[in-house]
Amino acid sequence: MQPNQEPEHNAAKVALKSRRKAERARDLLLETAQTLGIITATPYVTEDNVPAMNIAPGQSPFVRQDGHFYCFASELAAHVRALLSQADVRFQLIEDEQSAQNIWARIRLTFLADVKEITRDSSQFDEICAAIDKRHGPVMSVIKPFTDFHLFEITPISGILVTGFASAYDVKGPGFELEDHLTSS
Amino acid sequence: MQPNQEPEHNAAKVALKSRRKAERARDLLLETAQTLGIITATPYVTEDNVPAMNIAPGQSPFVRQDGHFYCFASELAAHVRALLSQADVRFQLIEDEQSAQNIWARIRLTFLADVKEITRDSSQFDEICAAIDKRHGPVMSVIKPFTDFHLFEITPISGILVTGFASAYDVKGPGFELEDHLTSS
Repeated sequence: MQPNQEPEHNAAKVALKSRRKAERARDLLLETAQTLGIITATPYVTEDNVPAMNIAPGQSPFVRQDGHFYCFASELAAHVRALLSQADVRFQLIEDEQSAQNIWARIRLTFLADVKEITRDSSQFDEICAAIDKRHGPVMSVIKPFTDFHLFEITPISGILVTGFASAYDVKGPGFELEDHLTSS
Repeated sequence: MQPNQEPEHNAAKVALKSRRKAERARDLLLETAQTLGIITATPYVTEDNVPAMNIAPGQSPFVRQDGHFYCFASELAAHVRALLSQADVRFQLIEDEQSAQNIWARIRLTFLADVKEITRDSSQFDEICAAIDKRHGPVMSVIKPFTDFHLFEITPISGILVTGFASAYDVKGPGFELEDHLTSS
């Protein structure tokens, strides 16, 4: 501490520095992540009449434009049927294990979002499919005609950004703006 | 096709080759993955009396010994409370995005498992914590005394192995032995 600085002033500086660091981690994750985790759960009752949960963790390549995520995925997967039926879905971006500085606290964004299907007759459909093709390669042109595949526009509402031990923030909106600093996640 | 071979014989050869390839992919994933996905969902009712689902996708560094996964994780996280309460949990290992040959079908193992807590007074406790420390670094020794952390033994029962488009298998037991070939996942 420098002699003339108040401790409160230093605490604020440290907090601001942590926040800037978390924002950079968020931006890097948004730039580099290739697939969006799409996780859903459906309650059911077993043969023995016990309530149970069918949990389906899926993931899909995406492009991100103007704060919207776009995914093209098949309804043969449970998590995609959940998107179509507006069921409860949680989304997640997470850094790769190999790039993680701290394997105990991989950088991740977990969020709720509005989901809208972009239908094949929409003027956006071809343009977004072309963007997915450009980023994720020619598989896109192979699967584009398959009618079990649907194009989704996913617009983040709110979530949590974790960037390390004791470094978690509430985030809000399509740009994942940092709100409160959380002490646990 | 060679002149004297039956088409059935060739089909069986192709199926066996695919199966061997899937087994190698499974083994590589088990060797290289560092964190186990632990995903849980808890039903609740909103303020407006609408049934909803709290979906918590978590992950934890692990070691694997004799077919059991061991994780040391804090009950401050919802997915860890789910392990403690024997709630419905889905587990997942998935290859990193950067290593994926096909980003549209990342190699993954999704499974159900038996969960048992290894208590601190167990003779196994120190030995397994040492194995986790050895694999995942000195964070382990820092968090070992924290009483909100618990050590879990996770023993796979059954699941699905996906190794590509049209390459999914039912798997069974702690060794994830391949059973039926599935046509969709």
